[in-house]
Amino acid sequence: MPRYRITVEYDGTPFVGWQMQENGRSVQQALTEALERLTQERVAVHGAGRTDAGVHALGQVAHFDLARDRDERTIRDGLNFHLKPEPVSVLRAERAADDFHARFDATRRRYVYRILNRRAPPALDRDRVWWVPAPLDAAAMDAAARVLVGRHDFTTFRSAQCQARSPVKTLDGIAVTRRGDLVEVSAWARSFLHHQVRSMVGTLKMVGAGDWEPARVAEALEARSRAACGPVAPACGLYLVAVGYGDDSVSPQAVT
Amino acid sequence: MPRYRITVEYDGTPFVGWQMQENGRSVQQALTEALERLTQERVAVHGAGRTDAGVHALGQVAHFDLARDRDERTIRDGLNFHLKPEPVSVLRAERAADDFHARFDATRRRYVYRILNRRAPPALDRDRVWWVPAPLDAAAMDAAARVLVGRHDFTTFRSAQCQARSPVKTLDGIAVTRRGDLVEVSAWARSFLHHQVRSMVGTLKMVGAGDWEPARVAEALEARSRAACGPVAPACGLYLVAVGYGDDSVSPQAVT
Repeated sequence: MPRYRITVEYDGTPFVGWQMQENGRSVQQALTEALERLTQERVAVHGAGRTDAGVHALGQVAHFDLARDRDERTIRDGLNFHLKPEPVSVLRAERAADDFHARFDATRRRYVYRILNRRAPPALDRDRVWWVPAPLDAAAMDAAARVLVGRHDFTTFRSAQCQARSPVKTLDGIAVTRRGDLVEVSAWARSFLHHQVRSMVGTLKMVGAGDWEPARVAEALEARSRAACGPVAPACGLYLVAVGYGDDSVSPQAVT
Repeated sequence: MPRYRITVEYDGTPFVGWQMQENGRSVQQALTEALERLTQERVAVHGAGRTDAGVHALGQVAHFDLARDRDERTIRDGLNFHLKPEPVSVLRAERAADDFHARFDATRRRYVYRILNRRAPPALDRDRVWWVPAPLDAAAMDAAARVLVGRHDFTTFRSAQCQARSPVKTLDGIAVTRRGDLVEVSAWARSFLHHQVRSMVGTLKMVGAGDWEPARVAEALEARSRAACGPVAPACGLYLVAVGYGDDSVSPQAVT
């Protein structure tokens, strides 16, 4: 059974999230059905990251097995044809090693969180950014974020529904930058806890707005308590940008 | 009667265009009604550029008169409150000179046209870009565009419905750049003919795709005939980025 790896972009707005659920349309279901229309095969599509409802992807990775070899371009273009009109687009399809696993083999995941920081609400980027009208000090957020880098117990920044066995994770990097009215938080790690990026962003926003002293971020981390976290940032600002495997570099793909 | 100038961002997708029309919702109407809800005054809102249906704005400028002085921030935030949920956002509101005219005083308009140039269709930027799957040579488009700069009879690049008295316009500049999968055409001038930017972009796309020799752009211009124009590029990729007045600089605001 040849295995294929696809790289997928999607608008998370109309979906209940990546994963199939009883209560609505998922990205995984859209891809599974498009694949079935293309190949007449009903196969499992495994994703690298289970993005939540409303969370977007610029470079989600998934894999599946087909009964026979097919041309990579035919898979990409055929899936895109059958995905219409849903806002899911297959950027690349590649033949993968038979034991490749999109989720378990991933060594690096990069997320970007976009904040529109201006008085006027977004007209063009509604559902694409978190609108924060109060002025944010991005440099202060960037400095405050540094204490989060490294291996820590991230219980403070973990949702109550998180199913990971351990709250200990290694955050490889986090950076806050400003480009005009847009404040971007970029975070990368082998893996993240449920709601970890949104919890960190919501906490750093408190620092950026001047509501929290920067030192409170370290205190929140050390508290290992959900109660110490700032408000969780909304889903619509979050993008799964890229997933890396082994020697692959996770490209710092621009959010355009 | 104090006069105010506003700078407006909008998603053109749900509108029949800037200008009020019988056949549907316009941006001008949305602003007029929001202003009426805010001030209880029904006044005319004059825009700098009459964008077509589906065309977006990052920096449209408009003016209107009110019966009495009002705080600029109150106008901006109040209009935005009353505009909800329409995708129109007032970025700035400023007291203007009593004889300021958004349309007739404008000395420079800048448009950007965004092309998504990749095999996979847009998932996140649907209705925000023109999707062109065939590879485009942006450098060839940029070189070919140079013959359009300057004072010319732009009849070739003018819609049959254009109401301008003369087809002669001065194009101050046009540039084609690539950033990853995104090809952007930026054009600026005191004023443009109806469909001029989309006609120029559709023509340059023929060059970029290798369907036209670059020299054919000069021939098309010299032909002064609508028949010599390439296919007009779709509205959804076009953005009115900024409007300049007198000594104002038109900021080359990034399209994010």
